[in-house]
Amino acid sequence: MREKGISLTEIVQEKYLDRRLKKYAESDYYPFHMPGHKRQMESLVNPYRIDITEIEGFDNLHDAKEILLDAQRRIAGLYGADNSYFLVNGSTCGILAAISAGVKRGGKILIARNCHKAVYHAAYLRGLPVRYLYPIINEAGIQGMITPESVECALKEEPETEAVVITSPTYDGAVSDIEKIAKVVHSYGIPLIVDEAHGAHFGFHSYFPETAVRLGADLVIQSLHKTLSCLTQTAVLHANTSLVSKTNIQKFLAVYQTSSPSYVLMAGIESCIRMIEEQGEELFASYVERLSDFYRQTNLLQKIKMLNNEKKGDVVWDFSKLLITGEELGLDGKKLYDLLLKDYHLQMEMCSGNYVLAMTSLMDTDEGFARLLQALIDIEKRAEGKEIQGRKESEKQKNFIEQVYQKNVKRFELADAWEREGIEIPLSESKGYAAGDFITLYPPGIPLLVPGEEITAEFIGNIRECFRLGLNVQGVSGNLRIKVVN
Amino acid sequence: MREKGISLTEIVQEKYLDRRLKKYAESDYYPFHMPGHKRQMESLVNPYRIDITEIEGFDNLHDAKEILLDAQRRIAGLYGADNSYFLVNGSTCGILAAISAGVKRGGKILIARNCHKAVYHAAYLRGLPVRYLYPIINEAGIQGMITPESVECALKEEPETEAVVITSPTYDGAVSDIEKIAKVVHSYGIPLIVDEAHGAHFGFHSYFPETAVRLGADLVIQSLHKTLSCLTQTAVLHANTSLVSKTNIQKFLAVYQTSSPSYVLMAGIESCIRMIEEQGEELFASYVERLSDFYRQTNLLQKIKMLNNEKKGDVVWDFSKLLITGEELGLDGKKLYDLLLKDYHLQMEMCSGNYVLAMTSLMDTDEGFARLLQALIDIEKRAEGKEIQGRKESEKQKNFIEQVYQKNVKRFELADAWEREGIEIPLSESKGYAAGDFITLYPPGIPLLVPGEEITAEFIGNIRECFRLGLNVQGVSGNLRIKVVN
Repeated sequence: MREKGISLTEIVQEKYLDRRLKKYAESDYYPFHMPGHKRQMESLVNPYRIDITEIEGFDNLHDAKEILLDAQRRIAGLYGADNSYFLVNGSTCGILAAISAGVKRGGKILIARNCHKAVYHAAYLRGLPVRYLYPIINEAGIQGMITPESVECALKEEPETEAVVITSPTYDGAVSDIEKIAKVVHSYGIPLIVDEAHGAHFGFHSYFPETAVRLGADLVIQSLHKTLSCLTQTAVLHANTSLVSKTNIQKFLAVYQTSSPSYVLMAGIESCIRMIEEQGEELFASYVERLSDFYRQTNLLQKIKMLNNEKKGDVVWDFSKLLITGEELGLDGKKLYDLLLKDYHLQMEMCSGNYVLAMTSLMDTDEGFARLLQALIDIEKRAEGKEIQGRKESEKQKNFIEQVYQKNVKRFELADAWEREGIEIPLSESKGYAAGDFITLYPPGIPLLVPGEEITAEFIGNIRECFRLGLNVQGVSGNLRIKVVN
Repeated sequence: MREKGISLTEIVQEKYLDRRLKKYAESDYYPFHMPGHKRQMESLVNPYRIDITEIEGFDNLHDAKEILLDAQRRIAGLYGADNSYFLVNGSTCGILAAISAGVKRGGKILIARNCHKAVYHAAYLRGLPVRYLYPIINEAGIQGMITPESVECALKEEPETEAVVITSPTYDGAVSDIEKIAKVVHSYGIPLIVDEAHGAHFGFHSYFPETAVRLGADLVIQSLHKTLSCLTQTAVLHANTSLVSKTNIQKFLAVYQTSSPSYVLMAGIESCIRMIEEQGEELFASYVERLSDFYRQTNLLQKIKMLNNEKKGDVVWDFSKLLITGEELGLDGKKLYDLLLKDYHLQMEMCSGNYVLAMTSLMDTDEGFARLLQALIDIEKRAEGKEIQGRKESEKQKNFIEQVYQKNVKRFELADAWEREGIEIPLSESKGYAAGDFITLYPPGIPLLVPGEEITAEFIGNIRECFRLGLNVQGVSGNLRIKVVN
């Protein structure tokens, strides 16, 4: 079953990071994960040769007037934004800057509960009282979209809200109706900020949803390394708005980004933009063909299924994310993930309760898709022949993920609670206290509890169960102690 | 006079950033500027091949347990810190994190007026009332050190101060007496934070000063790309303290750094650490030999002088920075800078009123030093033969730089003033208002006015003079309008 080539066990024996990475690069492990360049881009040149600073002729990102301004204008043109800003500290700094610029210190904000932690961090830094929008969970138990109705309802209740923040697409590829949400948000005269970190490929082909930039969102943050071909840690902030001032955006970008931005990262953005400008149409056409083929062929499998094979209920999918479940074979997500990694050298992006997530991009190869399909066919055969033993714990895990969206009782605002020193106490004695830190289950990486929210008996039971199942819970120590404030 | 090879004029005709960088890499321009690898490091491999994410076997920077923890421990060992943290958003994020972790929200802070803007940004984000330490100006008019006496005096006046922040070495290489300052600061039971961004090479050879890490500073931030051989945008935060909690440091690093840290940047840090571990002694020995030779040989010049050739007054210099003045030839900094760039293809780090700054590092070559020496000899000859016409405006500019350190009247705290919307008015009508933004002269990049400080008639006159001289003033628009609050 094992592919040729060096194994991960051998690779991790190399103790130095640079050498371990090099060894890994020479192995046959195929990346169904970020970054989207899939290690397929040609190098410009030795990166050290082009790693300069703000010398003559090379502009200054924090006061761009020439070649960097031009490059940013071209990316704005490509996506239909008024202004676009290169980010070298990832979508993280774009989110921090967008929220800081869009809401005055201490102003109220409405955010989707399934937002990236950077959104919570922005609220903390700027002392913003937070109200939540709770996303829909679809039949597959996957974190879903935010409905325009829920936004309308929340804004009616809190008309002093200064901005709305949602994540679309989600990590799993669920897409919200940005056009309708933007209309609702604008009827209150406030900006809509969309974390589109996983959607930089949107709008380039009808197979994929339209980008939020063209659907009325005011500020949109996209990672350029997740689904396009840029180097990791690159992103872009698009502004299409009269509700947030350009001065304010630039002020906060200068605060949250290094004053020594990397020309290697920026050159990578430039190469990627130009590739899309010059060859985007054909690259996307063949990418979509590969994807459609893959969905067509996995439809022929008996037991292994694609969770996002079709539009289910209200959920619109980004089909670049492959959500593969082996549930009917008794394979939970972790088991399927491990099989693909160890026996087939296929590295998934992540596993969840009952599925694995394979990220694809326009840089994937025919060989990559063929290897994944072949592996799934083979796993199905082995499982039916009882060579692989399935377990049935997936149901349990699915329930946990649904509980992420339970509404908690807020005792203190996030900005106050996370600032307090707090004390660490045994989890078993924490009932009735407020959480002093984020408690997060990875994946999906959405906080179960936010600082200031009340710890209940039910929550304590769930965390115990998470530990029993060996899940990755951050914010509770291995010896089951938890930070609380009161 | 012109060297062989393509000129900058031709290079900047290339409109795409990646291609312009490549062309520049192939030219004969020699870098006497950051980054310290001087484009001499061998590439590991095509950077895209090693640009991965937090997959199996490669740890997670924000929760390091394996290879990244090990690498951070090795760098801590190298510098003598209890804990060291890789930074992929430059010293900027290390400064933001150190100050945020070291001072509670709204707490008082004492900072050197010549600090990097990130220090001011941290005070703004955390709402910290700021008091200033004013550095000494030496005979050359160069931004100098902070004295232990001034720290003692300021802390006596403001005993509720929660932390002290100073920059040492400065951009020009002036070094403060960290050991004594740390003792003063610790006598108040508070932490000393040192921005040692320009001193990552300290402590590896007796020719250079000792690092603040070993002299009692609590938190020390070093850029790894400025004076060592890492890729731009990499830095490290060292902690050697019981006054700031590890939990708090990690919390803020997670806030200010991308959640997708670049493995290319981290691999670059790894290569650099190992290079110093394995060959540091010999590399530093030959670097120091090159530097000493250069100082010896420039001593023989008649009119061109090194400002930092010896210890002058109370200022201790980092001799890796070459401060070259052609004042006696009537050449101000800008003129000398332009001559070196255009006629000799030597790119300086910066020019100031009466000098240019050439940054050197352990990666400089014999050829680089020889070219610089030869150029200076040649310029001296040409100027004496009246081939080069000098001007005498340098005195004027030197005065401006001294005015940076004038104490201003604070009308509002920075955190309040910078948050306000403010209005733009003509500079000529701004007397008596408080500044609504930072007004900064580049170089040296130290704010002339901080938001909330009062605009005086003298200040208005100075700004007019700056514009007349063609200096780079940020915070005042080209048509002489300025943002004010009141």
